[in-house]
Amino acid sequence: MGEDKTLNMITINLIGSGNVAQHLISVLQQTEGVVLQSVLVRNLKSISHLLTDEKIITIPEQLQPADVTIISVTDSAISEVSNTIPFENQLVVHTSGSMGLDVLNDKNRKGVFYPLQTFSKLKSIDFKEVPLCLETENESDYQLLETFGKSLSDKVFKINSEQRQSLHVAAVFSCNFVNHLYQIGNEICDENKVPFEILFPLIQETADKIKTLSPKEAQTGPAIRHDQKTIDKHLAFLNDETRKTIYQLLTQSIQNNNG
Amino acid sequence: MGEDKTLNMITINLIGSGNVAQHLISVLQQTEGVVLQSVLVRNLKSISHLLTDEKIITIPEQLQPADVTIISVTDSAISEVSNTIPFENQLVVHTSGSMGLDVLNDKNRKGVFYPLQTFSKLKSIDFKEVPLCLETENESDYQLLETFGKSLSDKVFKINSEQRQSLHVAAVFSCNFVNHLYQIGNEICDENKVPFEILFPLIQETADKIKTLSPKEAQTGPAIRHDQKTIDKHLAFLNDETRKTIYQLLTQSIQNNNG
Repeated sequence: MGEDKTLNMITINLIGSGNVAQHLISVLQQTEGVVLQSVLVRNLKSISHLLTDEKIITIPEQLQPADVTIISVTDSAISEVSNTIPFENQLVVHTSGSMGLDVLNDKNRKGVFYPLQTFSKLKSIDFKEVPLCLETENESDYQLLETFGKSLSDKVFKINSEQRQSLHVAAVFSCNFVNHLYQIGNEICDENKVPFEILFPLIQETADKIKTLSPKEAQTGPAIRHDQKTIDKHLAFLNDETRKTIYQLLTQSIQNNNG
Repeated sequence: MGEDKTLNMITINLIGSGNVAQHLISVLQQTEGVVLQSVLVRNLKSISHLLTDEKIITIPEQLQPADVTIISVTDSAISEVSNTIPFENQLVVHTSGSMGLDVLNDKNRKGVFYPLQTFSKLKSIDFKEVPLCLETENESDYQLLETFGKSLSDKVFKINSEQRQSLHVAAVFSCNFVNHLYQIGNEICDENKVPFEILFPLIQETADKIKTLSPKEAQTGPAIRHDQKTIDKHLAFLNDETRKTIYQLLTQSIQNNNG
């Protein structure tokens, strides 16, 4: 006598059609033990390439209760969207790194399902490798959200709102700001007719190294060596005031933090 | 009638025992078409784990002429070391990113053999992937140095001193400063009891993205979105003045460069 497998399925509603929502639609349809019940969007066409029309709804009143309802919209719209949900006392989560639980309407049980990755529409992602940062208001909901998270990814973390805020700030330094330094490197190469790709192996190795050494241990270069001759040469080479200021500030910070 | 293959071998002298020198000793012994003739070091024991004793010399006068003599010592010692070379009119190159040809003694033909990678003694490197930036004073020597470079690496570039200087500055931004931003991310995680490894997939994806998108196109986050609410939240979260200043300066630079 086999069990009825559908009894153990986790049902999911999704609200939104952005980058994160689209990656979730794809992965939810491929995940065992999970049923994507409905996707609520403003414009049916925005996601009709991703799933069959009968699952797409455009009016909040059509949403049926599900085990987890995921709101994946821009930060400033989460509150308003959560107000339009027609049912009560279900688990409703948002996917934002910087918003608390309080942004969600009180009529449902609250949680956060924050995938910490940079999603581009054109680039596929191995979702098993995406860290999921989970939080629920009620301890009793955590197990449900964790079971759901583990069916999608091998990297599930229990992270409260304050920790999530710190992660978001850390990600700005380690991702957005890092990318901006790549941009400055790229521009310096272009201005001197040197192919930027010469730096790719170095960029790759720098990102790899911190998996086995702490960044503090891994630091190299003129700043940490207190090689003032080279630092002066580099400052004389830089003719852009912003770049000079960034160079000086980061050199000083490296020296102060490791002295 | 077979050719005598040794006639076509490139003979190499190496001077130095640092990270770059040790990686070169290993790769030179594994490379077809290349003969490592002698390695000159101050202390025989520093490299005796890497090659047989008869190839190691400790007195400059024992150096015999070779097709290429590589000086791989710290920047400030290159000049002095090049003065001690006992022969004349051979190709002598250094491996520094920031020194010109003029640092080498005039009695030999000059060149640069700059491997653009971060070398750690404990971490092996696929040398085929290491970009080699080559320069020679005489055009006629370039072909020899290029043939030698191509036997070691698939990525050989002709780079003059000014371009090499620009690459060195670009590498400080894209490697040393990037690593320092990783360090700040790591510290913020530690202070908030969040495992830094949650950020590894994001760090990896950020480094990968620029191989298909320019860093300018790849930029994401609150700065480029001019999301002042989130920026203010992050600044309020940061209690360290240096971090605040770095956050503000890089946010401003992102907005000015992409506005």
